[in-house]
Amino acid sequence: MGCVPALQRPRVGHIQFLNCLPIYWGLMRSGALIDVDLFKDSPERLNTALVAGDLDIGPISLVEYLRHADELLLLPDLAVGSDGPVLSVNLVSTSPLSSLDGRRVALGATSRTGVLLAQMYLESAVGVRPEYFNSPPDLPRMLDEADAAVIIGDVALRAMHDAPQQPWDVTDLGEAWRTWTGLPMVFAAWAVRRDFAAAHPGLVKDVHEAFLRSKELCLTELDEVAAAAARWEETLSAESLATYFRALDFSLGARQVEGLREFARRAAERGTVPPLPPGGPAFFEG
Amino acid sequence: MGCVPALQRPRVGHIQFLNCLPIYWGLMRSGALIDVDLFKDSPERLNTALVAGDLDIGPISLVEYLRHADELLLLPDLAVGSDGPVLSVNLVSTSPLSSLDGRRVALGATSRTGVLLAQMYLESAVGVRPEYFNSPPDLPRMLDEADAAVIIGDVALRAMHDAPQQPWDVTDLGEAWRTWTGLPMVFAAWAVRRDFAAAHPGLVKDVHEAFLRSKELCLTELDEVAAAAARWEETLSAESLATYFRALDFSLGARQVEGLREFARRAAERGTVPPLPPGGPAFFEG
Repeated sequence: MGCVPALQRPRVGHIQFLNCLPIYWGLMRSGALIDVDLFKDSPERLNTALVAGDLDIGPISLVEYLRHADELLLLPDLAVGSDGPVLSVNLVSTSPLSSLDGRRVALGATSRTGVLLAQMYLESAVGVRPEYFNSPPDLPRMLDEADAAVIIGDVALRAMHDAPQQPWDVTDLGEAWRTWTGLPMVFAAWAVRRDFAAAHPGLVKDVHEAFLRSKELCLTELDEVAAAAARWEETLSAESLATYFRALDFSLGARQVEGLREFARRAAERGTVPPLPPGGPAFFEG
Repeated sequence: MGCVPALQRPRVGHIQFLNCLPIYWGLMRSGALIDVDLFKDSPERLNTALVAGDLDIGPISLVEYLRHADELLLLPDLAVGSDGPVLSVNLVSTSPLSSLDGRRVALGATSRTGVLLAQMYLESAVGVRPEYFNSPPDLPRMLDEADAAVIIGDVALRAMHDAPQQPWDVTDLGEAWRTWTGLPMVFAAWAVRRDFAAAHPGLVKDVHEAFLRSKELCLTELDEVAAAAARWEETLSAESLATYFRALDFSLGARQVEGLREFARRAAERGTVPPLPPGGPAFFEG
């Protein structure tokens, strides 16, 4: 007899940032949390854990997915992106972007996808080749030391909100990508490890369906999510948060996949990631 | 300006065992999870984290509370105990308990409160003084090496369920305590650090009220909780889990506090913990 263990719930990652709060809300309100072992962490640590096999399913930044596409399957219809302005992936500059050739650009981001998008945009759309350096995401300090700065995520959202009157140019990189390519941008998607999907297809199907239900539910309750989140923000109002959540695109339909492929193609051209296999990305088919 | 942080949600512990699953269910279904930073872990690590100040609020085993009562306030009306059989804190023996004087008793528990209760019961109620040793919670192996074994928690619940036909005597220590003292047993309570309660009384009040709502909600949905939990058990059915959840007493009313004081008095008499201060335990009054 001995010690009979419980069955293992799938180990699922969750990004503890504002952009994924609506998804968490949906998982909570729909009751799906009871059926997963949820690990909340930063995007980087979740990327690493999924690739290392310490998570079975989780969000992964597009760049990291492209680097490990042979180990992962994407979950259909689920992503974090924008089809236009995203509000939280920003290139902030004190000089015109066209003057940045050879000038310093501070990268204050933890998201490699957003940083890569900024570099791609500057080099291929604007046509300049700046000198990049990494920096803590403190915008005034970054702009003391550089002519432009890339800031991303909650920090960017808060900084933009708190400083609308500053004499900076702000390029919303979701909007820039859309104007440049005509396509939505996908910053992160949800993936399952191929070995886990092969061993437990039923569990993955359940988790995927729970996420899709959660996405639908949170979209219908977005003002409630925003009000709940605003309780914990110094300066962002429920209204600002609702605007932000509405800017985010949690879908991964045909146009989003086209955007993902276009980004993958350009990233591979730069040598930053391996090319997507033909017909990629590969999806979980539950 | 710089980086404007979000306000800090209270850091709240959660025991990732079956006995606290109804409380988690309630926190999820009521939406309270959105307002806490929940840390799921084993009882021991949560005890340590609360005492170290790495958590603000959390469940704590009664013994650890008694050791650190000067740093903690209990949250009213919330505990994990039983007013009679608890099903998951068991003394299993192959000889009559009265014959255990000088014999070996294996302690397979991670809960110091349950282990202390077993020792108290054997020495003061039964009147024997066995030789104790720690052991992994593998019941057949424990009973190979000892005449009796203390097993506690999910492992005990599963072992008892899987082996009802074995030729062992099983003493349910919740029931034994009740028969012995006439009182309910409190195995764990929820506490807030005094420094945190002094600095953030409003937050603590909110968390406390959320827990009380969660407790009420889960009690009305106990069959649903049991069905959801049974999905992840090899052998425990929804019915067995519902029976277990109904055996648990999540209240901390006048009788439970009397039971807590009686346990504290006996534990202090043994020199295991300091005595409760007069009028103790001290409660958070939000």
